[in-house]
Amino acid sequence: MKDKTFLMIPGPTPVPERVLLEIAKHPMGHRSTEFSNILKSVYTDLKYVFQTKNDVILYTASGTGVMDSALSNMINEGDKVLSLVIGNFSRRLAKIAQGLGADVEIIEVEAGKAINPQVLKERLDKDVNKEIKFVTLIHNETSTGVTNDVKTLVSIIKEHGAISIVDGVTSVGAIECKMDEWGIDVLFSGSQKGFMLPPGLSFLAASEKAWEAHKKCKRPDFYFNWTTNRKSVLENSTAFTPAVSLISGLKVALEMIKEEGIENIVARHTKIAKALRNAIRAIGLKLFVEDDTIASTSITAILPPEGISVPDIRKVLKNDYDIVVANGQNELKDKIFRMGTLGFVSERDAITAIGSLEAALYKLGYKFELGSGVAALIKELNK
Amino acid sequence: MKDKTFLMIPGPTPVPERVLLEIAKHPMGHRSTEFSNILKSVYTDLKYVFQTKNDVILYTASGTGVMDSALSNMINEGDKVLSLVIGNFSRRLAKIAQGLGADVEIIEVEAGKAINPQVLKERLDKDVNKEIKFVTLIHNETSTGVTNDVKTLVSIIKEHGAISIVDGVTSVGAIECKMDEWGIDVLFSGSQKGFMLPPGLSFLAASEKAWEAHKKCKRPDFYFNWTTNRKSVLENSTAFTPAVSLISGLKVALEMIKEEGIENIVARHTKIAKALRNAIRAIGLKLFVEDDTIASTSITAILPPEGISVPDIRKVLKNDYDIVVANGQNELKDKIFRMGTLGFVSERDAITAIGSLEAALYKLGYKFELGSGVAALIKELNK
Repeated sequence: MKDKTFLMIPGPTPVPERVLLEIAKHPMGHRSTEFSNILKSVYTDLKYVFQTKNDVILYTASGTGVMDSALSNMINEGDKVLSLVIGNFSRRLAKIAQGLGADVEIIEVEAGKAINPQVLKERLDKDVNKEIKFVTLIHNETSTGVTNDVKTLVSIIKEHGAISIVDGVTSVGAIECKMDEWGIDVLFSGSQKGFMLPPGLSFLAASEKAWEAHKKCKRPDFYFNWTTNRKSVLENSTAFTPAVSLISGLKVALEMIKEEGIENIVARHTKIAKALRNAIRAIGLKLFVEDDTIASTSITAILPPEGISVPDIRKVLKNDYDIVVANGQNELKDKIFRMGTLGFVSERDAITAIGSLEAALYKLGYKFELGSGVAALIKELNK
Repeated sequence: MKDKTFLMIPGPTPVPERVLLEIAKHPMGHRSTEFSNILKSVYTDLKYVFQTKNDVILYTASGTGVMDSALSNMINEGDKVLSLVIGNFSRRLAKIAQGLGADVEIIEVEAGKAINPQVLKERLDKDVNKEIKFVTLIHNETSTGVTNDVKTLVSIIKEHGAISIVDGVTSVGAIECKMDEWGIDVLFSGSQKGFMLPPGLSFLAASEKAWEAHKKCKRPDFYFNWTTNRKSVLENSTAFTPAVSLISGLKVALEMIKEEGIENIVARHTKIAKALRNAIRAIGLKLFVEDDTIASTSITAILPPEGISVPDIRKVLKNDYDIVVANGQNELKDKIFRMGTLGFVSERDAITAIGSLEAALYKLGYKFELGSGVAALIKELNK
């Protein structure tokens, strides 16, 4: 019986049935009144999730597309960019900036660590001539399961005067992220994460300060151009033919998000991830990110026990329990496996995951107290 | 009874039920073996539809995204580009090239006309120093319903030595378009057209000559970068998280295309469009493109009869018959309406459309021989 694959990867993430049914409908005309009404609702609700008064632009493109948009709409050749790198996805921002001809300086920490705000402060304090125009950073690093203290980091960037560009792909709609209150200049995210949709859509909002920088951009990309895209947002339309089916699904997903409430969603992610971490420790496995204060609540990276390989764990989970967990990326491949608890994930899902992980480890000959993970999980969930 | 809207616009176009059901499934992991197998099948079948041996890159982006890709992967600042403009979409290619800092020269004809190959030949013959590096053109101009003679135009460009960039968004998979045989350098298309899918995916193939030009491109866009994207094609993967649901649907749609056969699909489009044109003439309405040799077989633009407005025709078709036809764009708004017969369109659909158009015109007080359109249509379909 294997036709109900359960994705516990950091994206694509599970999609609610009512969203899937919406996506399955015959596509509608993207210039129709019906579709304009859907967009109106979507644009309003995206602001709610982004916790911003700025317009939220919607792209038919996945996460890397919107990363591209975030940078190519402001950066000119030779601009000085400071990139805070804590893993693959934050490194990609630096690469895109380099591709645009920016003068990129990188502050990098080892995988599994977060950026120390003090280090950023010292670097920016030294920049007395305000040469650094942009600082790129990630909220939640999907490749390692680390969450940066964006609130503090952005406040430091704000004090310096540079423009902050924050990758919120696996944080917005899952981890507390208050664009306006924290003063984030550019924030973006993708549909297949906290938004409970299949991949294919992405979202971006920019502050007034970022819009000023955009105006000075010599060669903004055509498809991702902020000006033309925002113009359409204000008209409850899209600049170009969008993925109408996914957007119809997005409307329903956003209604579910509003119904639950963003604070409750953040609390749910926190609770489930904390319980999952307790369970992993109870089983006797090591967490890749031991420090609870920087551990992600949407992705948990786990080290395999000695003598059992990551591919074996993934294989048994997939073949016998129809559960997909992610491998590590690049240098972390086969060193860690990653469980996503992102978006449409319930307490029951955590029980399923830990129970099945126990079963897989048991089959693979790992010695531990069977049931201890599920016990720790249930206890934490019911605190 | 109004819950079965029938789209007769040039995109989004109708989607087969079995494709919709595929799209409705829970998303799968984009790095799984199952999904890699889907991609393998998709990449092979895309070559069949593009009629090329070149690799076909797949983007999660709509048509304008792939237009962007076609140009930003080759053009450097100052490059001389010749743009053949016959309407809005071919004009967009010129705009994108200008945005990239190219030196763009435009040959433009009035709306409803095609490019005269002789005019192109004379211009290129004058370019003895081979300053023109790229020529952009459109196969089928969606805004007017005109099809350029791409075969002849591309042969002229080939003789000159410039690189031809052909927009096949509403032609590939519908109108005869033989990339390799005709020697097209860059050809691209979108999912919501001949491919019978909702919008959200687009496709591009490039010749060896175009790949050489790409290698000299200083600042190719990151998301649309040909090199990284093709690398993934060769690995039956994608460079970035793709719209997995739409791609699963694409696999099924491509299987349907192969089953029917590309020659039969082209013949079906030709037959239906010809019958539709006969019907329009029989009713006494004027075709915007009178010349049958350049008339599109995927989009037909029609002038309203005197005294009846385009908005009225569209409104009655929509309200009373649940059929959506497109208005004209920009300066053609309210001057023409456009019927798409693109992709998943059958003879029955043409009968529905002409029958309903007759009914709408009858209601709006237009005097004509009721039934004459349907009669002419049926006769032509059964020749």
